[in-house]
Amino acid sequence: MRWFKLTLAYDGSQYAGWQVQPGQRTIQHELEEALARIAGTRVRAVASGRTDAGVHALGQVVSFAASIQLQTEVLRRAINATTPRDMFVRTLVEAPPGFHAIRDAISKRYRYVIQDGPEYDVFSRQYSWYLPQELDADAMHEAAQLLVGQHDFASFQAAGSQRASTVRTISDISARRQNREWGSVIVVEVEADGFLYNMVRNIVGTLVEIGQGGRSPSWLAEVLGAVDRKVAGATAPPHGLFLVAVRYAV
Amino acid sequence: MRWFKLTLAYDGSQYAGWQVQPGQRTIQHELEEALARIAGTRVRAVASGRTDAGVHALGQVVSFAASIQLQTEVLRRAINATTPRDMFVRTLVEAPPGFHAIRDAISKRYRYVIQDGPEYDVFSRQYSWYLPQELDADAMHEAAQLLVGQHDFASFQAAGSQRASTVRTISDISARRQNREWGSVIVVEVEADGFLYNMVRNIVGTLVEIGQGGRSPSWLAEVLGAVDRKVAGATAPPHGLFLVAVRYAV
Repeated sequence: MRWFKLTLAYDGSQYAGWQVQPGQRTIQHELEEALARIAGTRVRAVASGRTDAGVHALGQVVSFAASIQLQTEVLRRAINATTPRDMFVRTLVEAPPGFHAIRDAISKRYRYVIQDGPEYDVFSRQYSWYLPQELDADAMHEAAQLLVGQHDFASFQAAGSQRASTVRTISDISARRQNREWGSVIVVEVEADGFLYNMVRNIVGTLVEIGQGGRSPSWLAEVLGAVDRKVAGATAPPHGLFLVAVRYAV
Repeated sequence: MRWFKLTLAYDGSQYAGWQVQPGQRTIQHELEEALARIAGTRVRAVASGRTDAGVHALGQVVSFAASIQLQTEVLRRAINATTPRDMFVRTLVEAPPGFHAIRDAISKRYRYVIQDGPEYDVFSRQYSWYLPQELDADAMHEAAQLLVGQHDFASFQAAGSQRASTVRTISDISARRQNREWGSVIVVEVEADGFLYNMVRNIVGTLVEIGQGGRSPSWLAEVLGAVDRKVAGATAPPHGLFLVAVRYAV
């Protein structure tokens, strides 16, 4: 038995998320089907986190164990030749025995792309949240800095979640306007040691209320301090969200 | 009756091209349906050129005449509210009586995007031609310059086409590598007073043979001089092609 660590990109548009669900097209299902064909036996793939339907990945990390004798680069090509065109294994390396993509993760980085203003770009529609009103990216960035550090992020947790602890540490967060050939976008990036369910999308929904001018940047401190989901903004839609990278000690 | 000039962007991925075809989803059909709903009567829309299935547009120009009393900006918003999310009217202005998007066009500009090399970007798969081998963009650019000027482009015309004349004038053509966050792409841009059917895709297919190193840049002069479709390279696939802009005297 060998242990593998795989870095996976996918366009989540046509998937019901990562996790296998009967009768649904999921990334885990497609990947496990490919691995089973190559290994000749069922292989269980574990992702660093389950992305929801419509959420994308630039660098999802997946662990699996299998008795496959192929060289890693040959195996990587074999998986890419067997999986659909909207997913792609970027890297594949052998990992220490017992490597586990969830348990061993140190931090994760997410990106959320907002397309704002009157010029709607049809080519970004599945990869960004479109808002016709122009947002104040500087105000969003200023507010976001209030989230840096160790806090109880219960206000940004999906309603009904039951995690043992809602304390997490955000090491970096930014909201920056980026020029594109066609208009511009606001890119929110956030890195933390872990995320509550829907935490990035709830932070973005809250930052957007600030960017729209309805709330001042300091409001974010109130939302954070309330430790209550009902105080924060709406949940941003899934199709603007990208899992960028996951860091490991190994 | 008022005459209108409309600039349209669309993601061609889910369309059977511009032109109305029974039982098919086409851009002309969606646009004419929206105009009919707004005008209360059938409106005929004429595009500068019929894009094929899968081909995209950043600035397709469409002419139509209708007795609609709305201000142009209100009409533009009404069309955008009525058409699908993968098309978008960028501008709408009133045009001189008789304005005709095909007949009055002076020049057109197309772009073709090639994604090359081992790093496959899943998010570009519907908007570029992916080739796993890295191409020599400089050789492609050098060769492309041989096409500038007035020539008989019969070698780059789709087999079986019957145009009265196959002479066209290319005023500008380039093939440039552009860095992206993820790998890089080669962007071919070409402007001409008119294009034969499949001309851009046949030029790109021929340039790719040069970029792959199988042919020298000077081979393009031979292909052009042969005035024979069988001499040129294969037709590049539609999903890398974008109609960028159409110029008019009016």
